[in-house]
Amino acid sequence: MRDVAVIGVGMQKWGELWSKSTRDIFVESALLAMDDAGIDKLDSMYLGSMTPGVFASQEHLGSVMSDYLGQGHIPATRVESACASGGLAFRMALMDVASGMHDIVLAGGVEKMTDISGGETTHALATAADMKWEGVQGVTFPGLYAMMAVAHMDKYGTTREQLASVSVKNHHNGTMNPRAQYQMEITVEGVINSVKVADPLNILDCSPVTDGAAAVIVVPADMVKKFKKPGVRVTGSGHATDTIALHGRDDLTTLAAVHASAEQAYKMSGKEAKDIDFAEVHDCFSIAEIIVSESLGFFERGKGGPAVEAGETSIEGRIPINASGGLKSKGHPVGATGVAQIVEITEQLRGDAGGRQVKNARVALAQNMGGSGGSSVVHILEVM
Amino acid sequence: MRDVAVIGVGMQKWGELWSKSTRDIFVESALLAMDDAGIDKLDSMYLGSMTPGVFASQEHLGSVMSDYLGQGHIPATRVESACASGGLAFRMALMDVASGMHDIVLAGGVEKMTDISGGETTHALATAADMKWEGVQGVTFPGLYAMMAVAHMDKYGTTREQLASVSVKNHHNGTMNPRAQYQMEITVEGVINSVKVADPLNILDCSPVTDGAAAVIVVPADMVKKFKKPGVRVTGSGHATDTIALHGRDDLTTLAAVHASAEQAYKMSGKEAKDIDFAEVHDCFSIAEIIVSESLGFFERGKGGPAVEAGETSIEGRIPINASGGLKSKGHPVGATGVAQIVEITEQLRGDAGGRQVKNARVALAQNMGGSGGSSVVHILEVM
Repeated sequence: MRDVAVIGVGMQKWGELWSKSTRDIFVESALLAMDDAGIDKLDSMYLGSMTPGVFASQEHLGSVMSDYLGQGHIPATRVESACASGGLAFRMALMDVASGMHDIVLAGGVEKMTDISGGETTHALATAADMKWEGVQGVTFPGLYAMMAVAHMDKYGTTREQLASVSVKNHHNGTMNPRAQYQMEITVEGVINSVKVADPLNILDCSPVTDGAAAVIVVPADMVKKFKKPGVRVTGSGHATDTIALHGRDDLTTLAAVHASAEQAYKMSGKEAKDIDFAEVHDCFSIAEIIVSESLGFFERGKGGPAVEAGETSIEGRIPINASGGLKSKGHPVGATGVAQIVEITEQLRGDAGGRQVKNARVALAQNMGGSGGSSVVHILEVM
Repeated sequence: MRDVAVIGVGMQKWGELWSKSTRDIFVESALLAMDDAGIDKLDSMYLGSMTPGVFASQEHLGSVMSDYLGQGHIPATRVESACASGGLAFRMALMDVASGMHDIVLAGGVEKMTDISGGETTHALATAADMKWEGVQGVTFPGLYAMMAVAHMDKYGTTREQLASVSVKNHHNGTMNPRAQYQMEITVEGVINSVKVADPLNILDCSPVTDGAAAVIVVPADMVKKFKKPGVRVTGSGHATDTIALHGRDDLTTLAAVHASAEQAYKMSGKEAKDIDFAEVHDCFSIAEIIVSESLGFFERGKGGPAVEAGETSIEGRIPINASGGLKSKGHPVGATGVAQIVEITEQLRGDAGGRQVKNARVALAQNMGGSGGSSVVHILEVM
C-alpha cells in the first residue's frame, strides 16, 4: 500500500443555505479544495451523502457532481454510511490512492437538509436507525441518544452539568471558526434551561440541521512537494460496524464500533490514544462526545463527563476535542461532517487555524459516526 | 496491486418477493455466496443499493446487513451509482483486496422495489436522472431511452424489429435460467404489438420492476486454492461518468461512459473487444443493449441492431450477450443487477450454466450502467 497525504481542503460557511442547491454547495467546497491544492483536474472522486434521494430527490450524486465540477468522464463514487458517509468517502479515497489505482483523488461530502419540512427531516434522519424495530415504534435520534445518556448517568454518575459542558465548550470554540453555523457563546445554565427534546437531552444538547459541504484532495505522499501547500500524512484508518438497533447491544454506555474502528487506526499508525494531540469527534449529541472520548481511549469509562467539566478537552486542555466547534456549533450536514473533520485537522496541522489553533499539534484523530453507533470511521493524520 | 479472484456466488430467484424484506433478500443471497465459497466469516463487505431510503425508508444499509449477516464489527460500505451501484460495489471490493487492506470481501447488491406504489417507483427511479433539468419536466427513464432510440433509428436506420429482437433473445435465454423473473418466450410481433410506453419503446422493450439481491466473494488470487470451487480471475476494471442529463451530450447514439469504462478495463486486462468470448450488459431497455454493444466495441456504430437480428449475440452466436436473460427477463432490482452479472459470468466460466452454457467460455465482460449512461462500470473476468 502506498502512503497517502492530504494536499488541499475546502468548505464554505455552513448554515441554512436556502439560495443554493445540493450541487451548488458541493461544487463550491470542491473548488475551494482544488484551489487550495492548486489543481484543476482530478483522477477520481468519492462523495459522502446520507440520503439525497429523500432530502433532494436526487440520487446518482457521483455523476451529478463530476459533471458539474467539469471533470469529464472520471470515476465518481458515492458512498453512504448514514452520518459517517463523509468519513467513509475519505477512507475510500485513501484506499483508491493506496491501491495505486489513481493519484489525485477528491473526497467530498454534502447534505442539503433544509429544503424539506421538519417532519420530513426527522423521517430522513430516522432512516439511519433500524426502521423495522426502532423507527416503526416512533423513536428518533434524540430518543436513542437519550437512552444512552440515561444509562451512562445511571452507571457512572455522569451529570446534567457535564453533558451541558460539552455544548458550552463546542460553542465557545465555534466563535473562533468563521465557517461555523452558530458563532455564539452559551452557558451551562442556558443548556439546562433550554427546551426539552428527549429527557435528559435539551435542544442545546443536539447538533442542528444544516446545509453544507466539505472537500479534501488526497495524493500519494511522495507527490506532496508538487503542490503549493504543506501536505498532511494519513497514517491510520479504521472502519467498523455494530448492531444497527440499540436493543442488540450488551452495553449502552460504550460504543463498540468506535472502539473497533479506533483499534484498527491505532494499529495501522503505530500510535496509541495517549499519542493523540487533539481530535475531532462526532458530537451529534452532548452525550455522544462523552462516550466517544471514552471509547477512543482518551479517558477511562465513566471519566469522560468529569474530564470535559474540568476543561481537559478545551483547546488549552490536555486533549483538545472539537476545536472546530464540533457538530454542535459548526453544524451537521450529515454527509459532509466526516470530511469537515479532515478539513479542520489539516488546517490545525498546518498551523492555519487562527484563534482556535491547538498548540504543538502534530498527531490528530478524526472520528465520524453513523446512526446511534451502527458504524464508525476513524482516521489518524500527522504533520509530514 | 494484488490480483483478485471470485471464489463464491449467490442469488435467489428474482421477482415480486412480497413476503420478504430488503434485509431478508440480501441475507439470503449473501449466505448462498458464502456457502458457495465454503466460508462463514468475512473481513469486509460492500453493498450496492440505489435508493433504499425511498424504496424502503432504510439507509445505513451496510451496517444493517453486516448486523443481520452476523458479521460482528466488520467494515461494511454501501455504494451508490444509480443502477450501476452493484457493479460499483464489486469494483470497491476489488480495490479493497487489491490494496492489501482485506482478504475475504463480499460484494453484494440489493433492491426491494415492490413495497411502494407504481407512481412512487417511477419517482424513485427518476432520481437517477437530472431531477433539476429532466425530472422536473416530467421525463422518466422510458422517455430518456426513447429519445436515444429515435436518434439511433434516424442516424443508422435501426429498425423497430431489431429493437424487438433484443427482448426476444433475452427472454429465450431467460427460459433456461431458473432464477429469472420471467421464464417465457416472446416474439418480435408480440413486442411490437405490446403496450406503448414511450414511442418507439413498448412495455416488452423495458426491463421490469423486481425485488432481488446477489452477492459474490472476492479474495487475493493466490488464496484461491483454499476454497472449495474453482476461482475466476478479475483482470480488468473500469468506471466512468458522463453528463447526468442527455442535453449535455454531443451524440445520443453512443454512450461515452460505456466507452471510457471499457477502455480502462481493456487496458488493465490487456484485452480488446475481439478477445471477449461473451458478455453480460445493461439492457434496461432494448435500445440500451444495442448502443452498449457498439460502445463496447463489439460492433461498429450502427451495426448493433443488424447483429442482434442476425443472431450474432445469441448463445450460439459470435459474441453471446446476456445469456442469463439480461435485465429484461432475469429482472432488474436496480442495485443488485451489476452483482448478478458477475454471478452469471462466474457460473459460465466455471462451466456451471446448464442449458444456457456458452461454449468455450474463457474471457467475459460485464457492463453495468447508471441512469441514462451518467455512469458505467465494466469488468473483465477470465478462467484461472
